[in-house]
Amino acid sequence: MTDPIRTISPFADRLAAEVRRKRNSLCVGIDPRWERLPTELKRRHGDGTLSAVARAYEEFGARILDVVAKLVPIVKLQSAFFEACGPEGFRAQARLLQRARRLGLMTILDAKRNDIASTAAAYADAAFAGSVFDGQVHPVWQADALTVNPYLGRDAVEPFLQSARRFSGGLFVLVRTSNPGAGQFQDLPCDGKPLYLHVAEAVGAWNRENVGQCGFGDVGAVVGATHPSELAAVRRALGEVWLLLPGYGAQGATADDLAPAFRSDGLGAVVNSSRGILFAYEPDERDWESAVKAATEKTIADLQSTTPMAALARD
Amino acid sequence: MTDPIRTISPFADRLAAEVRRKRNSLCVGIDPRWERLPTELKRRHGDGTLSAVARAYEEFGARILDVVAKLVPIVKLQSAFFEACGPEGFRAQARLLQRARRLGLMTILDAKRNDIASTAAAYADAAFAGSVFDGQVHPVWQADALTVNPYLGRDAVEPFLQSARRFSGGLFVLVRTSNPGAGQFQDLPCDGKPLYLHVAEAVGAWNRENVGQCGFGDVGAVVGATHPSELAAVRRALGEVWLLLPGYGAQGATADDLAPAFRSDGLGAVVNSSRGILFAYEPDERDWESAVKAATEKTIADLQSTTPMAALARD
Repeated sequence: MTDPIRTISPFADRLAAEVRRKRNSLCVGIDPRWERLPTELKRRHGDGTLSAVARAYEEFGARILDVVAKLVPIVKLQSAFFEACGPEGFRAQARLLQRARRLGLMTILDAKRNDIASTAAAYADAAFAGSVFDGQVHPVWQADALTVNPYLGRDAVEPFLQSARRFSGGLFVLVRTSNPGAGQFQDLPCDGKPLYLHVAEAVGAWNRENVGQCGFGDVGAVVGATHPSELAAVRRALGEVWLLLPGYGAQGATADDLAPAFRSDGLGAVVNSSRGILFAYEPDERDWESAVKAATEKTIADLQSTTPMAALARD
Repeated sequence: MTDPIRTISPFADRLAAEVRRKRNSLCVGIDPRWERLPTELKRRHGDGTLSAVARAYEEFGARILDVVAKLVPIVKLQSAFFEACGPEGFRAQARLLQRARRLGLMTILDAKRNDIASTAAAYADAAFAGSVFDGQVHPVWQADALTVNPYLGRDAVEPFLQSARRFSGGLFVLVRTSNPGAGQFQDLPCDGKPLYLHVAEAVGAWNRENVGQCGFGDVGAVVGATHPSELAAVRRALGEVWLLLPGYGAQGATADDLAPAFRSDGLGAVVNSSRGILFAYEPDERDWESAVKAATEKTIADLQSTTPMAALARD
């Protein structure tokens, strides 16, 4: 952290500052699912077209953002559910990312992009500052961070790194995912250790190029909270890396499972919860936003009382 | 091929039939890049907005499709370049896939999607038959095949398989990619063989569930033609799998490098070429479509004279 050749990582420091300010590192996952939306909202938008579903997702997401903006530091949009509505869904995705920024929330676009060379650069520019045509920058998603799949190797991750750094953005690279079958390839023993630890080491090297004042860098790792021993192994390997932890709540991970991911001051881990917060109401409940607010507050309180996030609450 | 429990794979058989009909298995990659478009087309659309770039990509792609439809069996759309134009870019992507179908071309959506469980299902439904809301199917991309990243393991690939099979579609799973640094993870020795051969074996198992009359199945593998020895190793491991070969032409692979990918009757490998065909003209050339047509015909002739694709030309 005192190495003079290290550059500052505005992404990592901004995330640290927002986590400290909100006294928690809960990330609300915006994963809209038509069948779970409030009945009233479905009825109002549901004319049986894809555009109507996209409009409903946008209104639902916007109202969720309004509820959680004062409570949490960061949100994550799951791109698959917006893609499911076609071009209008992507329009909703862009508008929700914009609204989140206006509300002072940091944003992760969870699109798990991956490709080679200039193709990866096209994804990356779209995710961060914007696409460049004739020297002019055209904003597309303007997310603060993007999830990236590492299977293609360093030269395929490089364009994402470059674009993130030009825009003071960050990456979260898939290391050990939260699904039950994640180990099929990720746990294969390679040269004396599982594949996911090789990926973790690569993430560590990319991250060390740009560590901020907070001691963490701009290349994070996605590690499922559903696999506590793998989570602990990744944290041992990667002291300076922000970890993004899916799997808490609906996928079965508990606060205890998360503990090894944090530094003692409560920084270093972002805990994602999607379904447990988004769908905390009965479909017919009129005041569903209050239920979402209560679920968010309860999740924060749980995390602050049972994980090292407690240190943030005490400050 | 005579195992009675095997179901028929309409995707594999349709691809085989189209390859035989066109007497080649060249796939034209639709990877539009603003800086390489014909000057006339840029001038006409270039009002400096993202929508204008999307409109230019759509017209460019449509005219390419019209030129190649009678010559090749299949085209591949690189989703990154459409995403670079935001929601209007995705509208262009949808319209080009639709036009390709109308022209009798098979289509690959090269989006390298990956995620877990119901999230993967959202991507997959969008890629194939369409998103389902209230029991109603809403077409989104309606591609014949989708590229998929395998890092998350079988249960994350499963939703893509299920959706592909409901729509008689196919997958192409990344096995050994064409970029220079592909080996960083893909070549790691795991349990006595490189990681990419573990992925290849998984592809083989998924593919065997649904092999068609042609002897190939509906789960193909992406293997860079830029790595001939790895390509040969994958083909030895996967006798019944369609291989999608990027890297021919602009990326440096030659016809000789491709030979091991084919069965002796000329089936089994789809050779992608993007830049070498799309940008075969000088930017100011008025009749750029003739240059694209000539480049397509020359590429086909090269492949038919120097690879086992020759068997198709002789039939």
